[in-house]
Amino acid sequence: MRLLIKNIGTLAGILPADVLCLRGSEMNSAEQLHNAYLVAEDGIIARYGSMEELGEEEADEVVDAEGRVVFPAFCDSHSHIVYAGSREGEFRDKIAGMTYEEVAARGGGILNSADRLAEASEEELYEAAAKRAWRMIRSGAATLEIKSGYGLTLESELKMLRVARRLQQTLPATIKATFLGAHAVGRAFKGRQSDYVRHVCEDMIPAVAEQGIAEFVDVFCDRGFFTPEETAEILERGKRYGLRPKIHANELASSGGVQVGIRYGALSVDHLEEANEQDVKDLAASDTIPTVLPGASFFSNLPFAPARAMIEAGLPVAIASDCNPGSSPSGNMMFLWSLGCIKMRLTPEEALSALTINGAAALGLSADRGAISVGRRADLVVSKPVPSLAYLPYSFGEELVEHTIIGGKII
Amino acid sequence: MRLLIKNIGTLAGILPADVLCLRGSEMNSAEQLHNAYLVAEDGIIARYGSMEELGEEEADEVVDAEGRVVFPAFCDSHSHIVYAGSREGEFRDKIAGMTYEEVAARGGGILNSADRLAEASEEELYEAAAKRAWRMIRSGAATLEIKSGYGLTLESELKMLRVARRLQQTLPATIKATFLGAHAVGRAFKGRQSDYVRHVCEDMIPAVAEQGIAEFVDVFCDRGFFTPEETAEILERGKRYGLRPKIHANELASSGGVQVGIRYGALSVDHLEEANEQDVKDLAASDTIPTVLPGASFFSNLPFAPARAMIEAGLPVAIASDCNPGSSPSGNMMFLWSLGCIKMRLTPEEALSALTINGAAALGLSADRGAISVGRRADLVVSKPVPSLAYLPYSFGEELVEHTIIGGKII
Repeated sequence: MRLLIKNIGTLAGILPADVLCLRGSEMNSAEQLHNAYLVAEDGIIARYGSMEELGEEEADEVVDAEGRVVFPAFCDSHSHIVYAGSREGEFRDKIAGMTYEEVAARGGGILNSADRLAEASEEELYEAAAKRAWRMIRSGAATLEIKSGYGLTLESELKMLRVARRLQQTLPATIKATFLGAHAVGRAFKGRQSDYVRHVCEDMIPAVAEQGIAEFVDVFCDRGFFTPEETAEILERGKRYGLRPKIHANELASSGGVQVGIRYGALSVDHLEEANEQDVKDLAASDTIPTVLPGASFFSNLPFAPARAMIEAGLPVAIASDCNPGSSPSGNMMFLWSLGCIKMRLTPEEALSALTINGAAALGLSADRGAISVGRRADLVVSKPVPSLAYLPYSFGEELVEHTIIGGKII
Repeated sequence: MRLLIKNIGTLAGILPADVLCLRGSEMNSAEQLHNAYLVAEDGIIARYGSMEELGEEEADEVVDAEGRVVFPAFCDSHSHIVYAGSREGEFRDKIAGMTYEEVAARGGGILNSADRLAEASEEELYEAAAKRAWRMIRSGAATLEIKSGYGLTLESELKMLRVARRLQQTLPATIKATFLGAHAVGRAFKGRQSDYVRHVCEDMIPAVAEQGIAEFVDVFCDRGFFTPEETAEILERGKRYGLRPKIHANELASSGGVQVGIRYGALSVDHLEEANEQDVKDLAASDTIPTVLPGASFFSNLPFAPARAMIEAGLPVAIASDCNPGSSPSGNMMFLWSLGCIKMRLTPEEALSALTINGAAALGLSADRGAISVGRRADLVVSKPVPSLAYLPYSFGEELVEHTIIGGKII
């Protein structure tokens, strides 16, 4: 199966095959080729170059990308798209002035989703999540991480992860699952947080590991949620069961989440709206990827994570959607590109690196995706005709994805 | 020609036929009907009501709106969609930290667009503007105001207005044209602002009026652009020639624009990012409509206009797109609804009123559009299936318009 994309206006995101993430100023360094072609064979990028170098080429499928930008498909390394029911009621509460913590304190927020999820059938959950995943694919994503965490009981957490597995089996995108039992304290454990942590460690993690339905373990380590000590306990237990840490940290306060994540070798620490200078310094001395979630800042009116300062400090920033019904109800990856530029002051190229190669790195997948390199997966986006690469994040309200290509197939 | 929309999940924006705009708390007062029908005859809303009251109804066209919201189409009362070329180069400058005024001071901004427009043919301008207008129509707009102001010479200003007239003649939406010669000082008048103002008054306004190709006169009254005195001179001249004032005011500073607008009976004063308490008080005592442009605040990182405070003070706030290549390159009306709620803290219903009946009022058109009333135009939006009205602004990255209906015709 050979795919030829010809007459590409701009082929962006070109990197050497051995580059696994881009740090600091490197985030501007991916090459671009104009008037280019790309050939994928059996789902893998086989070659690319200038149109002048393209000889006779037989192909099963040909895409003419004249006037278009072709770039690596997005790798969304943080989402919560398995849920039952939207939460626009709380949206009204927020408009009326309630904070995230106030909404949570009165039984809204994560527990609201947990209540609804407990009542939803696995089939309903699958149907709703598949719709969301398809929207994300159409907006350019080929790799999606999905977290549990609206279950908060063993049974419901496993149900969520089974839905994620079924999405893996049925959708063209690569789906990676993360166990996030410690997203909030389940209702049955109200007032007994340490008992809940023990339940997560002793009951949930072993069951998740036994069923082999998650690769990562996550904890909402923040003010009002789980402490760094509790987080350490959960990550340690997760690691022992083969689950790699990826955690929520510093969304609401700089409360030690970054440091505990680094200490346990987290692949990424995510959110970071309240990251301070020390957090940035500690990240610079680590291999942990700081993942920022501008959709949550936009929708929930939180500060934007200091992604610009992180890049200046040499960090490999990733951007992810955080798509969830409470704080960030959108998985539109193109809009995240706009937010990265408009609100975080990343250049169009830096934000693209954050959404592709660094997003892949935040899932441990960047050896085979996230960039245009010979030998990487042909997970690509072909834009609609646009005057330049920068037009893509600039024209923020416009639908600009013409094709998402996953494993060399036009979706 | 009879159109029947049946099984409407929520019919929103219902107002008495004689209501011409909604002030303050009234902005929440439009009625909603669930499980409703609506009949349009020859482009006019003939009747609507509960499905239980719907008898046998013959219709030329039937739309089944089960699970959908039907609401009045948006009236975008402020746009600049006739232009040549996008300005994502300046987007890079802004990311690098330059302010609006710095970009303008070094020959970017409006003068950049004026240079390109001078070189563009009328046909090219028309084609590009028509594409933008169609995108806006597909996002739910049925009424569009378009300003000149990238001409800044008599010839080019007239060229822009002829393009707007051709859009009027060829598109299904209602297009209203505004003469904005005083958008910036044309290059030929560099350093001679008062000479340019005289040129606008003595040469441009009479020519525009003679050709009958604009209804409104606008001035960019702000720090670094035109003074209140110059604005007064232009508005006075415009009024003498039959052009009704609608002005840009208080985007960059509270510099007297609101007051001069009110003094000359402006239909609206637009922008208002820097409106202060006195401005709000003065507006409350006037018939002038404050039009806020959250897309510009979002994209240009300006403060959001204090729309919430304006509503508390009893004002009839309108929301418009400001769609233009420099400070607000999007005409996506659904996204403006989200911004009104998320960033300005308007309820979903208030923001809808701002985008419909009050937008129509800002164009003097609210007697016949902008609300669901018997006798008003059947300019309507049918959403995709959604759980509730509030879901529409809440799910900010999703394409949620299924049909735009203009004059009773599905577009």
